[in-house]
Amino acid sequence: MPLTAQYMQRALDLARQGAGRTRPNPAVGAVIVREGEVVGEGFHPAAGEPHAEIFALRQAGELARGSDLYVTLEPCSHQGRTGPCAEAVVAAGIGRVFIGTLDPNPKVCGRGRARIEAAGIPVIVGILEEECRRLIAPFAKHVVTGLPYLILKSAITLDGFTATAIGDSQWITSPSSRLQVHHLRDQVDGIMVGIGTVLSDNPQLTTRLPEGGRDPLRIVVDSTLKIPEDAALLNGSSAPPLIVTTARAPQNRIDALSSRGAEILTIAEGEGGVDLAAMMAELGRRGLQSILLEGGAHLNGAALRAGLVDRVMIFIAPKLLGGNDGRGIFAGPGARLLDGAVELDHLRVSRFEDDILVEGEVRKCLQG
Amino acid sequence: MPLTAQYMQRALDLARQGAGRTRPNPAVGAVIVREGEVVGEGFHPAAGEPHAEIFALRQAGELARGSDLYVTLEPCSHQGRTGPCAEAVVAAGIGRVFIGTLDPNPKVCGRGRARIEAAGIPVIVGILEEECRRLIAPFAKHVVTGLPYLILKSAITLDGFTATAIGDSQWITSPSSRLQVHHLRDQVDGIMVGIGTVLSDNPQLTTRLPEGGRDPLRIVVDSTLKIPEDAALLNGSSAPPLIVTTARAPQNRIDALSSRGAEILTIAEGEGGVDLAAMMAELGRRGLQSILLEGGAHLNGAALRAGLVDRVMIFIAPKLLGGNDGRGIFAGPGARLLDGAVELDHLRVSRFEDDILVEGEVRKCLQG
Repeated sequence: MPLTAQYMQRALDLARQGAGRTRPNPAVGAVIVREGEVVGEGFHPAAGEPHAEIFALRQAGELARGSDLYVTLEPCSHQGRTGPCAEAVVAAGIGRVFIGTLDPNPKVCGRGRARIEAAGIPVIVGILEEECRRLIAPFAKHVVTGLPYLILKSAITLDGFTATAIGDSQWITSPSSRLQVHHLRDQVDGIMVGIGTVLSDNPQLTTRLPEGGRDPLRIVVDSTLKIPEDAALLNGSSAPPLIVTTARAPQNRIDALSSRGAEILTIAEGEGGVDLAAMMAELGRRGLQSILLEGGAHLNGAALRAGLVDRVMIFIAPKLLGGNDGRGIFAGPGARLLDGAVELDHLRVSRFEDDILVEGEVRKCLQG
Repeated sequence: MPLTAQYMQRALDLARQGAGRTRPNPAVGAVIVREGEVVGEGFHPAAGEPHAEIFALRQAGELARGSDLYVTLEPCSHQGRTGPCAEAVVAAGIGRVFIGTLDPNPKVCGRGRARIEAAGIPVIVGILEEECRRLIAPFAKHVVTGLPYLILKSAITLDGFTATAIGDSQWITSPSSRLQVHHLRDQVDGIMVGIGTVLSDNPQLTTRLPEGGRDPLRIVVDSTLKIPEDAALLNGSSAPPLIVTTARAPQNRIDALSSRGAEILTIAEGEGGVDLAAMMAELGRRGLQSILLEGGAHLNGAALRAGLVDRVMIFIAPKLLGGNDGRGIFAGPGARLLDGAVELDHLRVSRFEDDILVEGEVRKCLQG
């Protein structure tokens, strides 16, 4: 790996320490290098806190002068809660700036770079760009469209089943795959399931990591409020869930669930239940940038067909059920022709014990 | 990689040049190394030809004396068509012998090693052992059980489908995955499909590689001889296929197909068609060590449930059909509980363009 990529990789690693905590800002990391030595590092820890570049500049102090700055995202040029970083970079006398990716917000994209270049400082854009873009994909989706970035996660056997014919699904994947899912939960703003999953699995949907972790907003799509009052979701120590329903929900159920702390969000009726596009728009208005969709098959299928899924993460266990009667990732009608299938891009394959994680971005939506 | 592994890797690469051509012998490769320099190489090209060690010893000549021999499989100690290799190794004055894996045949396992050690030559066993065992897995299965090694190959979307609801399956995978399948065909003794695949896809089942390649014996499981006389299998330039049927096959169909050159093999009736275990025993008696099973779903399911599948190779394309109405790898009832699922071992994951090949050995058979 070239040196520039190595320093940007370090900036990415720093940025990830803030991932899931910076809303409404993106996660950003920065490294200052002087004659081959790292003299300043920083990441943006949370909204209201200084940006990554500021932490790195503070640590470098006078050593920043003439040094190289590596930053995963274009420094901001606008007066936010903490002042424009581009100004601070210029004021510190930075010698060169290496940027992972430009700001995805079309209203400000390129302004930070222009401000720095106007001061005579060379700017190089596009170091580990794909990786840097991936890190801020939820921010980018939200800032551009107003919608949350939806990550569909599932766990299947090698022959494509999430559960056997009688519904046995514990555990398809290895402990280390399941741990990885808790790392994911720790970094998203929301986690979403359908009522079928609540009724069959009674999940907590909390983040359970050895080091603790942060629970995302737990969202249940439940068009007629069938969720039982003794559901684990309503009775744990986490913040109460958000239950998305329709006008078909009986008032006495709304009252009962509200009295247990749950927030009830009523959304227009779509095909077969909650209008998922309208729901996502409302969740985006509430500031959620990323949501992890953990099933079941009806919600997965409806979200995919509605074109709402941005990223897919499938854990594949090296097992075969060996028949055609198991349960799949999606319910409902699939593509009639292969040409109509959803295609994934920027594919990544990794291993968790004997499981294989395949992940990619949705490049082409489903065409029936 | 340690030097010993590097030399054994070279011996493996040599051995693969004979893979699929050495029946009834296994594919074997050998390398002779003198003071860090390769002075002899060889592989077993075909039955009746000299073994790998002999080629390597001939090339090394006097340089073999005191040198290291790397051989993927234990040298033979029995007088076969070409004389015992262990004797030749001793006679050549080899200094040390590195063996990948011992002979899987329990009747001769360890004898070659003992003969060499008895001459005072140090023998080290187990260099790249898993890889060396995998190379001769078909030979090992056949020599120990009399049955061919059955490799189930399929190509699916990431959500587990081999075709859409209306049967569209061309092409799920990339050209480079399909090329890899032809390399597989080039190295197996037989290729097998069910009559459903013949009727729906009318495949040739030949090996089509840029450099040519060798066609395996093409086998169709067809319990009532429904195969049409104009099937591509019966009308290409390859050797006529073997059609496996039952006593239910009408005599006029047997006559018609025989007159087109096809061999008709009548096997006892099992559950729902040909008794697959009896068929595999007969194919083993005919000397077939490896068979590639290319579907369809009924034959795949029946073979897996009968415990006849040794290895599974699944090409996964980064596509989603997004529903539950596509066609899967297997037909019939799957495992009721996850504990009953087939588990795969010695897992390998590789990439062919954007496709992912997951392959492994069947560790645990299906339990309904």
